[in-house]
Amino acid sequence: MSSSAPTPAYRRLSVEERRSQLLAAALSLFAHRAPEEVSLDDVAEAAGVSRPLVYRYFPGGKQQLYEAALRSAAEELQQCFDEPREGPLMPRLGRALDRYLTFVDEHDAGFSALLQGGSVVETSRTTAIVDGVRRAAAEHILSHLQVTAPGLRLRMTVKVWITAVEAASLLWLDEGKQIPVDELRDWLVDQFVAVLSVTGARDPGTAALVRALTEDG
Amino acid sequence: MSSSAPTPAYRRLSVEERRSQLLAAALSLFAHRAPEEVSLDDVAEAAGVSRPLVYRYFPGGKQQLYEAALRSAAEELQQCFDEPREGPLMPRLGRALDRYLTFVDEHDAGFSALLQGGSVVETSRTTAIVDGVRRAAAEHILSHLQVTAPGLRLRMTVKVWITAVEAASLLWLDEGKQIPVDELRDWLVDQFVAVLSVTGARDPGTAALVRALTEDG
Repeated sequence: MSSSAPTPAYRRLSVEERRSQLLAAALSLFAHRAPEEVSLDDVAEAAGVSRPLVYRYFPGGKQQLYEAALRSAAEELQQCFDEPREGPLMPRLGRALDRYLTFVDEHDAGFSALLQGGSVVETSRTTAIVDGVRRAAAEHILSHLQVTAPGLRLRMTVKVWITAVEAASLLWLDEGKQIPVDELRDWLVDQFVAVLSVTGARDPGTAALVRALTEDG
Repeated sequence: MSSSAPTPAYRRLSVEERRSQLLAAALSLFAHRAPEEVSLDDVAEAAGVSRPLVYRYFPGGKQQLYEAALRSAAEELQQCFDEPREGPLMPRLGRALDRYLTFVDEHDAGFSALLQGGSVVETSRTTAIVDGVRRAAAEHILSHLQVTAPGLRLRMTVKVWITAVEAASLLWLDEGKQIPVDELRDWLVDQFVAVLSVTGARDPGTAALVRALTEDG
């Protein structure tokens, strides 16, 4: 090795590449451990760099890294919701849920820590990121249902169901992933139709939607 | 007024009474404002005492007062679940929900701040208090259903429904309490039967319960 290039790894990557690499290391650590159990040294070690280098890219330390990793995970999660607007509606919801549950499976400890609350890294910013994902999920569902001006009761039903999906995912993780993921998906799809029907019994707009859904096949 | 009793209010109350009075003042402030918007001075003023006196009782300041108020609110909320074990099951659930929703209505801003997360006063202790209430709610429901050894799917269904009740309550507050509270209660009771039926389609134990429930009323 020539002494003029003692730390080739530090030189090889552009600023953007290095940032991405640190973020990927952070994300894989935060995915499988509670944030309390991840240190900046762990991130540096996982990325094969020094702790000062991590600080150069993330001067806010662990909190900044956590938020950046969460933002990146939120983008990945939102991509789960992308589904072509063709074919029967319930299989579309089933496919989106499949991708969502795969994400949950692959980010288990981080997902639990994030949604269970009370974590040291939880701030109004992290809450806003999570709320953004929930909002995107609701918008996707309403757009697939081809509802442009949803009434209050329909909006509430969709949002409450999204919370139910999160709660079921957390319990599924808590219980050691005992239930087969296909069963969990079908259970959640059937719950969607069931709660929509309950709302439809009180709300004519939702009732029309339920008829369209069940005739849809 | 005699100069020998310049601050009668400070003498009149026992230590326990004073503590209760400060707690009641804190609870009424935390019920209607986000914790960020309540200061120790506000609590002192509401209780008609000095700030140092508040500190004497709650040396941990606002955080300690918040947690004590939350503990007291959690006890009050758990009392909502007490319901005699007689008569048809669904009306029992309806009455417990009525009391729960009255509590939500009377603690609106505090309830929202607590459950929306990301608050400065949120800690693993406050999360544990909230989880304790959820656990108590699930135990009450299963005991009314006379299930002593609930299977995983039934437990998940009950817990997910409890989360749905919380989510619906939050949305109800967010949307300015537009939906009549009786409609909200009936909607949640009907959702309970609906999601239980969805689980019953996969789980024989739950199916037997659903039959008993629908024959009951």
